[in-house]
Parts: sequence; C-alpha cells; structure tokens
Amino acid sequence: MFFASDNWAGAHYKIAERLLAEAGGFATAYGLSELDQKVEAKFSEIFEREVSVFFVATGSAANSLSLASVQKPGGITFCHSEAHVAEDECGSPDFFSSARLATVKGDAGKIDPEALTAKIARFPQDAVHHGRAAAVTITQATEIGTVYSLDEIDAIAAIAKANSLPLHMDGARFANALVALGTTPAEMTWKRGVDILSFGGTKNGCWCAEAIVVFDPEKAKEMHFIRKRAAQLFSKSRFIAAQFDGYFQDGLWLDLARHSNEMADRLRAGLEKVHGARLAWPTASNEVFAIIPKSAAKAAEDKGAKFYEWPIPESQPDLVGGDETLIRLVTSFATTEADVGNFLACLG
Amino acid sequence: MFFASDNWAGAHYKIAERLLAEAGGFATAYGLSELDQKVEAKFSEIFEREVSVFFVATGSAANSLSLASVQKPGGITFCHSEAHVAEDECGSPDFFSSARLATVKGDAGKIDPEALTAKIARFPQDAVHHGRAAAVTITQATEIGTVYSLDEIDAIAAIAKANSLPLHMDGARFANALVALGTTPAEMTWKRGVDILSFGGTKNGCWCAEAIVVFDPEKAKEMHFIRKRAAQLFSKSRFIAAQFDGYFQDGLWLDLARHSNEMADRLRAGLEKVHGARLAWPTASNEVFAIIPKSAAKAAEDKGAKFYEWPIPESQPDLVGGDETLIRLVTSFATTEADVGNFLACLG
Amino acid sequence: MFFASDNWAGAHYKIAERLLAEAGGFATAYGLSELDQKVEAKFSEIFEREVSVFFVATGSAANSLSLASVQKPGGITFCHSEAHVAEDECGSPDFFSSARLATVKGDAGKIDPEALTAKIARFPQDAVHHGRAAAVTITQATEIGTVYSLDEIDAIAAIAKANSLPLHMDGARFANALVALGTTPAEMTWKRGVDILSFGGTKNGCWCAEAIVVFDPEKAKEMHFIRKRAAQLFSKSRFIAAQFDGYFQDGLWLDLARHSNEMADRLRAGLEKVHGARLAWPTASNEVFAIIPKSAAKAAEDKGAKFYEWPIPESQPDLVGGDETLIRLVTSFATTEADVGNFLACLG
Amino acid sequence: MFFASDNWAGAHYKIAERLLAEAGGFATAYGLSELDQKVEAKFSEIFEREVSVFFVATGSAANSLSLASVQKPGGITFCHSEAHVAEDECGSPDFFSSARLATVKGDAGKIDPEALTAKIARFPQDAVHHGRAAAVTITQATEIGTVYSLDEIDAIAAIAKANSLPLHMDGARFANALVALGTTPAEMTWKRGVDILSFGGTKNGCWCAEAIVVFDPEKAKEMHFIRKRAAQLFSKSRFIAAQFDGYFQDGLWLDLARHSNEMADRLRAGLEKVHGARLAWPTASNEVFAIIPKSAAKAAEDKGAKFYEWPIPESQPDLVGGDETLIRLVTSFATTEADVGNFLACLG
Repeated sequence: MFFASDNWAGAHYKIAERLLAEAGGFATAYGLSELDQKVEAKFSEIFEREVSVFFVATGSAANSLSLASVQKPGGITFCHSEAHVAEDECGSPDFFSSARLATVKGDAGKIDPEALTAKIARFPQDAVHHGRAAAVTITQATEIGTVYSLDEIDAIAAIAKANSLPLHMDGARFANALVALGTTPAEMTWKRGVDILSFGGTKNGCWCAEAIVVFDPEKAKEMHFIRKRAAQLFSKSRFIAAQFDGYFQDGLWLDLARHSNEMADRLRAGLEKVHGARLAWPTASNEVFAIIPKSAAKAAEDKGAKFYEWPIPESQPDLVGGDETLIRLVTSFATTEADVGNFLACLG
Repeated sequence: MFFASDNWAGAHYKIAERLLAEAGGFATAYGLSELDQKVEAKFSEIFEREVSVFFVATGSAANSLSLASVQKPGGITFCHSEAHVAEDECGSPDFFSSARLATVKGDAGKIDPEALTAKIARFPQDAVHHGRAAAVTITQATEIGTVYSLDEIDAIAAIAKANSLPLHMDGARFANALVALGTTPAEMTWKRGVDILSFGGTKNGCWCAEAIVVFDPEKAKEMHFIRKRAAQLFSKSRFIAAQFDGYFQDGLWLDLARHSNEMADRLRAGLEKVHGARLAWPTASNEVFAIIPKSAAKAAEDKGAKFYEWPIPESQPDLVGGDETLIRLVTSFATTEADVGNFLACLG
Repeated sequence: MFFASDNWAGAHYKIAERLLAEAGGFATAYGLSELDQKVEAKFSEIFEREVSVFFVATGSAANSLSLASVQKPGGITFCHSEAHVAEDECGSPDFFSSARLATVKGDAGKIDPEALTAKIARFPQDAVHHGRAAAVTITQATEIGTVYSLDEIDAIAAIAKANSLPLHMDGARFANALVALGTTPAEMTWKRGVDILSFGGTKNGCWCAEAIVVFDPEKAKEMHFIRKRAAQLFSKSRFIAAQFDGYFQDGLWLDLARHSNEMADRLRAGLEKVHGARLAWPTASNEVFAIIPKSAAKAAEDKGAKFYEWPIPESQPDLVGGDETLIRLVTSFATTEADVGNFLACLG
Repeated sequence: MFFASDNWAGAHYKIAERLLAEAGGFATAYGLSELDQKVEAKFSEIFEREVSVFFVATGSAANSLSLASVQKPGGITFCHSEAHVAEDECGSPDFFSSARLATVKGDAGKIDPEALTAKIARFPQDAVHHGRAAAVTITQATEIGTVYSLDEIDAIAAIAKANSLPLHMDGARFANALVALGTTPAEMTWKRGVDILSFGGTKNGCWCAEAIVVFDPEKAKEMHFIRKRAAQLFSKSRFIAAQFDGYFQDGLWLDLARHSNEMADRLRAGLEKVHGARLAWPTASNEVFAIIPKSAAKAAEDKGAKFYEWPIPESQPDLVGGDETLIRLVTSFATTEADVGNFLACLG
C-alpha cells in the first residue's frame, strides 16, 4: 500500500533489463555515443519534428535549466501558485536563472488565463524597477493531479505568445497527462505553442531518466554550456539513454502511465464510496487528493499504508474540517489492484 | 583498444546485477531509504569514522558543491594549474561558489608546497580588494595519473591548516590512488587532514555513482540545502546507493582499481620498449601519458585504437618535438591484457 | 508642485556646503579616512551603542547586501506584499542572496503578525524541498507612508526571534518614521530587536548617502567582502561620509524629516476638504495616497503638478471607482507650503 | 606628499562648484533628468558618435557590469595577468558574470598579442568542458602606468574580432592615457575596435563619477536591467551627471590629466637622478613604479610621504634586490611641484 509518491517505486523490469544489457562494451562519453544519438532521434520521432534533447539528473534540473535558458536580467517567470518550481525545488529555478517566479492563481492547480494576463501586465518590458515578464511555465499533469485540456494549453500559449514569452511545460508526469487526454506528444506540446519541455521518465518506471526537450534546435545551443556549468552532464550518459530506449520500446511508457492512471481511477471510485471521505479536486491522472477523517488516516497508517498528509493550500484555507485531513495518494506502474483494494478497506 | 577514458567503459556486471536486484519494491525517496542509510553506514565503516555522505550526479557536482560548502565572499580556492576543477568543469566550481580559483604550479600534476605557501600569502584574510584564501583542493590520483604520497598530502594539509583553510580532495579516481599507495581510505584522507572528499565510483565500474563525503558531520548540515538547490538530489536515490553497495561488496572496488592499474603498468612497461616512444610523466595509477611519433598515433588510430591527443601543458611548452604528439591512455576495469598487447603492437 | 518622489529633490544646502568643504586635501581611500571613522562613530552615538556602518550607493544595495549577509542556501526572506524589496528592486535582493522572498499580507502596508507566523510555519528549518525561513524584513516608514508603532515592531521582532530569524529594517525613510513616532533611533531599532538596518539619507536631503548599519559588529565581518564583491565600495568614500556629517550636524536630519512630514500633514488635511477626494490609507510620514477623480488628476497635471498614478494593490482590487485614480504624493525637505497650497487649489 | 593613489585626492573645485550649483530644484530621478540627458549627449559628442551611457558607483561596477553584459555560460574573459579586474575587485567581475577570467602575460602591463592568440585558442567555441572564449579586456592606462599605443590596441582588437569576441576597455585612468597619447577619445576606442568602455572620472578630479559607455546603442538594452539588478542605479543620478558636466566643461578633464601626467614626468625625471633608485617600468601616465633602497622608503615615510610598497609581480620574481623595495607613486590633479620636489628630497 505505497501511495506516498510514484518515486517510491523502483524500475520496471524491462527498463532494468535494458540497462543491464548496456553494461558491457565501450562507448563515447558525455552524450556522444551511438545510443545517445539513437535515443535523441527517437525523441524527434515521438514528437514528430526535430528536437534537441538534454539528459539531466533530476526533474528540478530539467525545470531550472529550461527556465535559465530563456531568462533575462530582471526577468519574471509566471507559474501557478502551487507549482513544483515554486514550492518544492528549494529555489533551484531562481538560483540557476538569477530570476524570480511570480505565482498566478487558478482553480484545480491550473493557471487561470485571466489572472495570467493581469499578472503579466504588471511586468511590462521596460519595467526596470519592477522587473519584466520573461517566461511562463505550466505543469502537465499538474501538481494536484489535474490535466490541462488542449484548449486550456492553447489559452495559456496564446497569452504567452501575445506577450512574446516562451512557454515551458514541466512534464514530470508527462505520460500520465498524455494518456489521460488520449492525445499525442506533439499535440500536447509544440503544436499548442510549448517551446521547451521537462520530460520526466523517473516517476513512470525509470530509475533516473529526465530530459530537457527544446523544440527549436536553433535555441538549444546555449544549453550545452548551461547544463555542463550546472554539473549535469553525465559522463556515462548512455545509461540514461538506455533507460529511455527501454521506456519508449513498444509503447511501454504509455502502457505504464495507463496502468498508473487506472489504479488512480479505482482509488477515486472507491473513495467516493467510503463514508466520510471525499475527493479534494477532480484529478485525472495518477494523483488523488482525498479529504478523510483523521481517524481513518491513522487507521490506514497503522495498517502499513504509506501516503502523505498534504498542506492545505493558502488559497483554500477552509478546504478541510476540524476532524479531517487532506491526503495525497499517488499510484505508479507498480501499484496493484490489491494495493488499492487493501487501502480502501483500511479506510472504512 | 579503448583507451580514451575510463568513462567510456560500461558497468561491471556485479554492479549492474546489484542494481537490477533493486528494481522491484518500494522505498522512501530522496535519500531516506533503508538502502541509502545502509550504504551511508558502509561509508562510515570504510573510512573508520562517522561521515556524512551526499550522492550527486557527476564528479563536477561533487567538486563544485564541496567547494561551495566551504566558501566565503571574495574567497579563493587553490588548485593545481592542471586541476580538473579549473580545466574541465566549464566554470562549475566558480558558478556554484561565486568564488574564484587560483592555480598553483607543481611538477607531475601535484601542487608544489612552496608554491602553495607563496600563493596563499598573496591572499590574506583582510584582503578586501584582492580576495582572501578560502580553501585548498588536490586531486588524488591527479589529472595526469600521478599519485600524492601520504607525506605529500601531509605537506599540503599542513599548509592548509596553518592558514585555517579547509582541504578538499577530488577523488574521481580515488580507488586507483588507494591501491597504488597500498593504504587505507582513512589514512589517505582525514588522518592526513582532508576535510571533504569527492568520492568517485563512475570511472571505476559504476554507471553513475558519485558522492560527497564530509568527514565532520557537524559541518555537513548546509549541504542538504546546497545539493537540493543545485538540483542534485535524486528522487530514486537508492539506485545510486545500490551501485555503491555492489561496489563495496567483498572489496570489488579495490579489485577493479587494482586491475585497472595493472593494465596501466603493462602499458607503461610496453611503451618503454617501443622505438621512439617515451612516458611524459611518471604515472602510478590508471592513466598513462606517452609521447609518440605522430605517425605512430595515426597508425594506431587507423587500426581502431581510441585515445585522446592531449594539449601540451602551458608550463611545459617544449614537452614534445615537432614530429611527436602527446597522448593520454586510460585503462579501466574493462581493459584486457589483449587490448594492451594489441595497442602496443599497433605502435610499432 | 513636485510630488513625484522625494528623490526628485536636490540636496539641502547645508549638506551641499559640507560636501564642498571636503573637496580639498587628501585622505585615505576606501572608507578608511578620518572622516569616515568620525562619521562611523557618529552613527554609534546616534544609536547609543557600537555599530558597524557600511556606505553603499543605493537603497537597493543597502537592502540587498543586508539580506545577503544573513542568507543561507534555500533560505526565504519574509516581507510585506507591497515591500520595496519585492516590488521595485528588479530582483536585486534575490540576485545577491541567491535566495527567495515570500510575501506576507497585512493592512496599511504593514506585515500582519498572525499572517507572518503562519507563513514562517510553512518553511521549517528542515524543509529541504520547500525552503527554510531565513530572515524577516520590514520597511519603516512603509512603502505607503504608514509607520509601524514600537509595539508593532515588537510584535514582528518577537516572531522573528521565536523562529531564530534575523530582522532587517528598510529605513529608506527612517528619519520620517522616527519623527512621526517621536522616538529615538535606538528605540526604533535594536532595542526592539532589529539586527540590521538600511539607513537612508538620500531621500531626506542628501545627494547619495545610504548606509548599512549592523547592530552586532561581530556579525559585520563578512560585509566588507560582500560589499566589495558587489562593487559597492566607494574609493572616495569620504564624500559619502561628508554628507552624513552634514546630515547629522545639529539635528539637521530630524528637522528636514519634520518639515517633510508637516508638508504631508498639510496635504492630508487639505485633501479631506477637496470634493470627491479621499485618502487611501492612514499615512503618517511624508507619503500621501489619495483617491481622486481622474479629471482632477488631469487638471493638476495640466497645471504642472508632478506625481505618479499608482498601481492598485492586488490585495485591494476595489480600492478605486471607475472614474477615480489612485495617486501618490511625496513631500520632501524642499517642499514648500506654497507647493502644497497650489496643488490643492489645482484639484478643485 | 600624497602619492598613495589618485583616489586619495578630493574633488577639483570646479567640479565641486558645479555639483553645488545643482543642489536646488527638482528633477526626474533614476537617470531621466534633463541634465542626465544633456551629459549623455555630451558623451556622444566627445566620442563622435551616438553612444549609450550608464552611470555606476565604482570602477569595479563599470568593469563588472560591462563584462557581464557580454557574457555567456561557460565564458572566459581574457585579461592581463596584472589586470585590476583580476587583482583588485574581490571577484566582482566573476560574480556578476558567473564567468571566469583567464590571464594573459605581457611585458609592461600590456597583453602580449601572441600570448593572447595562444590563450584564446585553448578555449574554442565548442569547448563545453574547458569553457569558451567570451570577451577580451584591456586597461588603458594600464595598472602599472604604461599606455597602449594605438597600434597596440589595433593588434589586440584584431585578435578579438578574428575570434568574434567583444573588446572592453577599463578606462579608470582614461584621460591620463588620452593625453599621454595625444589622441582623441574616438581614436582610442571604437575606431580601434573597442565595444564597451569603463570611463572613469573619479581618479581625475571627480568625487564619484564612473560610466559605462556602450558604443553600439543596440547592444545596450540589457544594461538597464543589469545595472538595476546590481543595485547601481542612482536615484539622484543627476548628481553624477553634474560632475561629468563640470568635468567636460572647457576641457577641464584633459587639463587635469595633463597636469597629473606632468607631475609624474617630474617624478620619473627626478628618480633617475636619485642614487640607488631606478624605474621599474617605462610608465607614461600618472603612475610611477620605482625600485628604491628600503632605507630610502623608510626615510620618506618618516617624513610623511604617503605611498604603497607594491607586491612583486609573480612574473618578475627577481625584480628587486634584497635591500630594495618596489614602490608605487601616483600623481593626481592635486599634486603640486612642491610635493614632487619634497618627495625626491626625502629619498636622497
């Protein structure tokens, strides 16, 4: 009953075996091996255009270096008020950019377009004192498990373009969003106006596989130096490539995400039947936020269930009652139906 | 005949299998799993004292964050003029520290103690304009394959202590130096006065296993934040731990380094017999620098040998003749006697 | 009718003459002259304890370097949501600290103690992902012209101390607050728990006279390097010292602030009698915020009055009606009763 | 007998009076006043082309922000091994750029063109590990008082252009170099290929007047934000403008520099006649470096002469004998013939 996070899971055996198969032999270091190049080409195929790909160690690195690559002095990056870049990366995006984040409100973990427009208007391009708009970032799937529809991405992208701002997508759970929408990688990104993407594989069955995808290779030239200066260029880079190679093989990545989302569907469905429990937000991917009695949470923990009690968002101070608690449940490729059933049984 | 770098090798099969064995199950993320803790304890055992251990993605990260953790505004870190931190990390140590490196000369890739004393004297603690001494870093084994003797480390450490400067060791090839000296990890580090260590496993048979070892855990508290802000905290940290677990099992790490050094011994011995070839420096670990005729280098490359022609150090402009070239040969756990023999045969 | 800002004024003639008197002769550069030391001693006398003083070029520098001097990796500085450090310094405090600001709400431009406590609680000292509380900063007088009472400073300081956080005061308009409260520099700062102060003289009759005052000289040692590395150490530092020397002579600084506040009192009193005008906030120093008909604003501008229309705070979206505008009026040592009278006459 | 530095002098009375004249009245803050604009236009007139001008607080700021404005990740700025940016700015250029300096040798304080070419070649544009060439900076007059001839500047500029590197000139003593060469500002800068200039007025008779001059205004847009984020934008900017206005009036700046250089000529001529003294380098502006007996240095100090004993350059370890010392003597607008005569009398 491990629902603490999808990064508590290990690695899918097919990815682990693909990695093992790469143990022998020799290959050029620092991202220049044949396997690195093969996997880069695979990314281009998946995204239906030539892209530049940069492996990095963590999702925070993907986000931070992506945003750093589009910064300017006094620049402001707009993100949702619950965004991972603002909440959970220890200031890494600010550190690498020497720039600031400005948070924008929005229901269900998604930036509200009107609020975004209003916020950007506060940072015009000649605002030497106040700072100037520099970039927009959205998370897909969001930090609370919801998913931007294609139309919703369009709306954000239109605002970014109208203000000449690059649009970044934090895709730590990219695959989960993709299968939730039932669309293609291209449709969910550059065809909507996304310029740069943090593409996460770790949470969905890899050990450590994160990539920055730059949709206009012309704009990717500085990233080689930005990444190396950030100490994020792996010497045996092909061990990352190998994981992605297994990840993409025969659509494994989509199968894993689909499974993970289905387990979350079961959780959602089951929770609705639990007395005293309710869903906090209408999530659609592999994260479920539930409000349950504190006693139920304790009971589940006593029986070995692992999950996090979640801080109440500042924007929703009255979300839970006095005897209740907000919990986050995350499913993964490794979650089983039995896990879900056992957990639901604990609660009530 | 792969002698380009030890990071062109893959992973030793025991380490790969150890990693595979960890694929299943669930565990706490971000370095807090049981396996992470077991491996941290293993580090303490190996170093014969309680140490704090921080896994990071690259050797550059280990060096940069180590040096950042001991910095102060206007601080100067002293390193050898050929040091990796100065030559090959794209300014990463300076970037993370907002501090500068000052290079110190010395034969055979090792800091000359007198030159170090003289250089430190140029940066007194009240030198607001010029900058003040902040740290000393040495590389063991050095960038050109030589190894500081214990007495030589003592000499550097004495100068660091006399100036109240922390001493960092870049141990990208720590194991190779250790077996070359036939000493213990404790003797080669904190017993000599080393305060903080970049402990490398990647070049010696792991895929990606680099750690910062802080010998005084009291001084390690800030590192948690320094690492996270640098986007170097792995979520599935236990996959790094698993590699180290396999690496340390039954002394595998020392066996691998011993093998690697022996292959370098064979290269050195063989090169002395090759007409027109000579060793550039008296190396003692798994790197060999040879001066050979350009024609011999070309012949070897034509037969498939992989190695780098190396830039002539600024301090030795007359090192090679007009028809000669300086080459670097690096052996690894995966180098075979046949590789060495074939390579030597290529040369002449 | 110059009410755009107190930094549109020039220099008081006594300060200008004091500066002129210093033109001749020679003196040690970089802050070590006799005059520098005399003025440092004067600061200690004014604050009734030994303090360390660092002249810098701008108020932004004073704030940014003050906050940088107390930072830690992943640190968060708490400020009011309308604070100058957050709104008007182009990210300078973040840049110099590599740290982030978190804004706290509060009426009348002052941090609300309960909101501060709640916000700090979100950033505990072991919050590696989220970031940890590092400092609190308040502005006195505030950005909207209000003044923290001594009790209100006590309340903020108590929270800072309870959380072991240093307390910084942005005193760009320190003298205006001081005379508004009728208290002493010591009572308004370190006796309340302020650790470090940006002491501004520029807005109150100097040309360029800003100082960082550190109340515990033991903690000031790093500042020498922080300032120099920030390129803020003046060579002919005594020209700053000379301005402060004139500023403090015979209580000139308090006289100038008193005059400035009195002119604001006149403005406030007059505005209350203007049909259709009202004060936005109950200010007490030399800044007045008024809500007036747009037509009145235009009329005043047409007659040559200089002032800024001010952005509506995000926290008070309904502050002004559709035909109204929010204007900021700032008085200075150079404002005359005639200026005030003429301006009020313009409005209606 | 003040020869410690030209920044020990005060302000020329004409500049002081010009500043005093500006004390009254009101003007737009932050560099937008009529006087600011008038002085900007004056710079364009002096340089015979439209230039962009940015006032900053210190010469270090001018250098650091100039270099920051042309940086790129992993970039290297090439400077002379005795350059002020490397030796005396506490790492400020590195701090603001997050980039590194590489020093180039050269006699008489001037970069040797061949050494520059060789050094740049070590940092090609694709050198992700080693770093890539980003900018060249020269100091005119140099740190040891010598002056690049126009041909010598041409030689450096040609190398910079051949490598597509911007060329910066540190003109802390620009006027002294200008009158030493008897040329025009345009001829000594952009006509030679200089792209950006630190124009110093402080050492030559101002209190605090330093400016960044960007010769291609198109490239100056980012500087507004770089400067503000660095907390270097003065609110009462016109007090800097006023100094420059007086400085340029009727060629005062050239007269002051001419006087200063003449006093240095007298020193040089006199020192040649002092028994046991000799000039260290063939200086041509207002700095004189002499090697004199330690006893003579002590005698002069005992009689009240102020000067600095200077560190022996690392490149010339045998410059002085055991009983000798290297001293630096700097003249200024305020140095008198009597000062020079008295000092020479002290020595012998």
